[in-house]
This record gives sequence, structure tokens and C-alpha cells, in this order.
Amino acid sequence: MERIKCTFSYDGTDFSGYQIQPNGRTVQEEFEKTLMKMHKGTPVKVTASGRTDRGVHALGQVIHFDSYLSIPIENWQRALNAMLPDDIFVKEVHKVTGSFHARYGVIEKEYRYFIHNSKEPDVFKRNHTVFIGNELDILAMKQACEHIVGTHDFSSFCAANSGVKGDKIRTIYHVSCEKDVDTIMFRFKGSGFLYNMVRILVGTLLEVGRGERNPTDLKQILQAKDRSCAGKTAPPQGLYLWNVKYESD
Amino acid sequence: MERIKCTFSYDGTDFSGYQIQPNGRTVQEEFEKTLMKMHKGTPVKVTASGRTDRGVHALGQVIHFDSYLSIPIENWQRALNAMLPDDIFVKEVHKVTGSFHARYGVIEKEYRYFIHNSKEPDVFKRNHTVFIGNELDILAMKQACEHIVGTHDFSSFCAANSGVKGDKIRTIYHVSCEKDVDTIMFRFKGSGFLYNMVRILVGTLLEVGRGERNPTDLKQILQAKDRSCAGKTAPPQGLYLWNVKYESD
Repeated sequence: MERIKCTFSYDGTDFSGYQIQPNGRTVQEEFEKTLMKMHKGTPVKVTASGRTDRGVHALGQVIHFDSYLSIPIENWQRALNAMLPDDIFVKEVHKVTGSFHARYGVIEKEYRYFIHNSKEPDVFKRNHTVFIGNELDILAMKQACEHIVGTHDFSSFCAANSGVKGDKIRTIYHVSCEKDVDTIMFRFKGSGFLYNMVRILVGTLLEVGRGERNPTDLKQILQAKDRSCAGKTAPPQGLYLWNVKYESD
Repeated sequence: MERIKCTFSYDGTDFSGYQIQPNGRTVQEEFEKTLMKMHKGTPVKVTASGRTDRGVHALGQVIHFDSYLSIPIENWQRALNAMLPDDIFVKEVHKVTGSFHARYGVIEKEYRYFIHNSKEPDVFKRNHTVFIGNELDILAMKQACEHIVGTHDFSSFCAANSGVKGDKIRTIYHVSCEKDVDTIMFRFKGSGFLYNMVRILVGTLLEVGRGERNPTDLKQILQAKDRSCAGKTAPPQGLYLWNVKYESD
């Protein structure tokens, strides 16, 4: 058996999220179906860096799985892409040691969130960005971003029904907000993220951008450790799991 | 009754084409359903500049319809967009005289066709461009484009099963091919286009780009007036009905 690490992108539009569920098409299911075909009917379980919700995209999701196939490593990418549906694309495949774990080995994750900020919506962007027709205060959002960086208890930014076990302390290394023509991009890098954390952060930052909150409110919201103090959860289609880092990289 | 001219975009991905058909969701059906609701159950027939096929997009499709509603013209756009599905977006609405006809009044149409020309496909572009992984000879395609401009019998570039009545002579004012980073854009402007004409032209130009044909072959293909002499029909998802011009504009 060999352990394989695989980095891939997917368009979340037509998936009911990453993780297998009884009803609805999922990324994990498509991957495991493909691997089962390659392994002549033997089920192969894949383990991801984490799940993504319905409608959320990935540029660099990472999974590992164990395979008895002796495919030269350089052929894995082509073999997988030939069989996977066209809304999943494998970008890199590596052999790793048995100690590699796609979920427990994560040392940093990056998410990005894209807003289409224009007078009129664009039908071609509707599944891959969130449209906002009003002007937003970019400077205020930049200032608010600074309060998120650091090690904090992010209870206020965790979905109430998350079922997260253990503490809600996470370290965020980088948060930024940049506007380029009619696209606003938020970037978040951190040691880990709670359930819906990025979407609640973006929802709250957008309330700052609309002038409904002050940039310094982020400090108080963090201190409150209460989900009801933060803003609305931003919609899924603007969110991308951008990159996952491991010690072995 | 007042005649309304309406310019709109749509993402063709989830439509079985523009024109109403017994099975499958169509742009015309969505529009007529919306208008029927606005007219309290009275059917309203819309007439378009022309149909588009399954998977083909539009930036500036034009329709006309007659309405008894006395909505101020500036409110039509908002009213329609509030009720239409989010893969159709109305860009402009004008009152026109009863002599305006969205199909018979066309004096020029522009189509564009987009190729994603890169080493690897991009899941986020798959419904809105056609992916080609090989390098293409842009200069040869540019040269081939020049032979298409002018008044010709385009029988070779008309789908064999088109049912087109009358002659197949059309005047093409402009054809170009430009590459910008990893995007190749073809532009076609003409008095009118036959069924599948742009897609067969693009399919043939791509064969020139791959070195399978010479740029001057376009001349002989036109002269042959035989569909089997031209290239394959390029896929629909790269094609956009970009703009429609009327004398009244």
C-alpha cells in the first residue's frame, strides 16, 4: 500500500458540499467512486483537509488515500482527471509517507472570498462571487481586518450548530481586503478555522463596509464569545478553500 | 398597447437554448412566464433577434413584446429583474414604435467566441469557454479570418439540417482573433448568420490554428458550398451573442 496526497480544485456550484451525505452529489463521493473504479471495485476511503459546504469552491483542497495500485506517480494525475467529472480537476499528486494525514497534518489554511461590487449583477459571475450593488467602505473593512489577526477565541464567529468539540481558539496569521476594479477579495490565513468562521467574518466585515458597524467593533465581538454579536453568515458562492499547507511541504 | 424593446444577458449553461420547446427549460419560456405573471395571466408573446442553442450565452440578446401595462419605462428593468431567474439579467428597456421588430429589423449582429488556451483546464471556466490544451497558431488563424470577411455564399458553414429557407448569402463585416494571456477571443460581425455558422467557422479556424489546414483553405471551403468541406462544429459553451444592432439605434 502506498499513501497518495492529492491536491485538486472544484467548482462547488453543482455539489451538495464536499462530504458524502445520503442525498445529493458530493465531491468526496465522486472521488471515492472514481477510485473504486480504478481499484476494480475495492472501496477506497479518502480523507480531506476539511469539508466545504454546499456551493463553496476549492482551488487547492487536499486529500490522502491509500492505494495498492502501482501506478507511476506521474500518471496518477492524468488517470484521475480522465475519470473524474469536469467540475473537479486534480492539480498535483504526490507519494507521501504513511504518517502524512490530510486533516491532522494541516499547519495553515488559506481561504479567499470574492465579492462582485458593481452597479449591476453579471449572470456569468453569479455562482462564483457574491454580488453587492452598493458602494462599500474598503478602508473601514481593511481596518476591521487588523483586529481579526492573532490568537483569539473565535466563538462569536462559529456557527451556533457547529458541534465543534474542544476550544474555539484559533490563530489567524493574515486577513486582508483588496478591491480591484469591481472585485473585492478577502484573504484569510490561519492555523485552522471553525465551522462557517470565514463566512461569518466576511458577513461581519461587510456590515463594517456598509457603515452599519465600526472597524473596532470586531474587538468587542471577539470578546463577547457569542455568535449573536457577529454579523450574518455571508453566502457560500463567494468562498474558496484556496490553499492548505503541511509541515512536509 | 405599447411595444417594448428589451436587451438582456443570459448564462446559457442551465438552458436548453433560447426557444421554447416541449421539454427543457428555455430563456423564452422564462421570459414569457414572467410577463404572463406581470399581465395577470394574459399570455404575452416575445419575439427575439434570433434563437441561440443549448449552452450558448448572450450578452445582448434583444426581444420585443406588446404590453397594455402602463409602467413608466424606467421601472420596467427593475420589475423584470425582480421576477426573472438569476441567470437572466435585463440590461435595457425602451419603448419603441409598432414598426420595430426584434428579428426583421436587425441590421448587424455580433458574436464572440472564447477559448481557454492553457496547459490545464480551469473548473471555473468550463461552462463559459472551450478549453484547448495545445498551442495554436494565432497568426495563421488571423490570416484565415480575413478570407471570411465580405459577401459570400456560406453554405459550407451552415448546419446540414438547418432548414434555412432562401439563399445562404450573408455579408460579414468583421472577423478577428486575439489572444490575451490564456484567452483567445474570436469576433464576428455581420448582417446575419446561418444556423451554427459561427460555431462551424470557429471549428474550421481552430483546425487552421492546429496546423491541419492552411489559412487560404477558407477560400476554397467557401467556394465549395458544401458543409462537409468545412471543419467540425465548435462546442456551444464558448459562444456569446454579443450585440444586436437596429436601424433605430
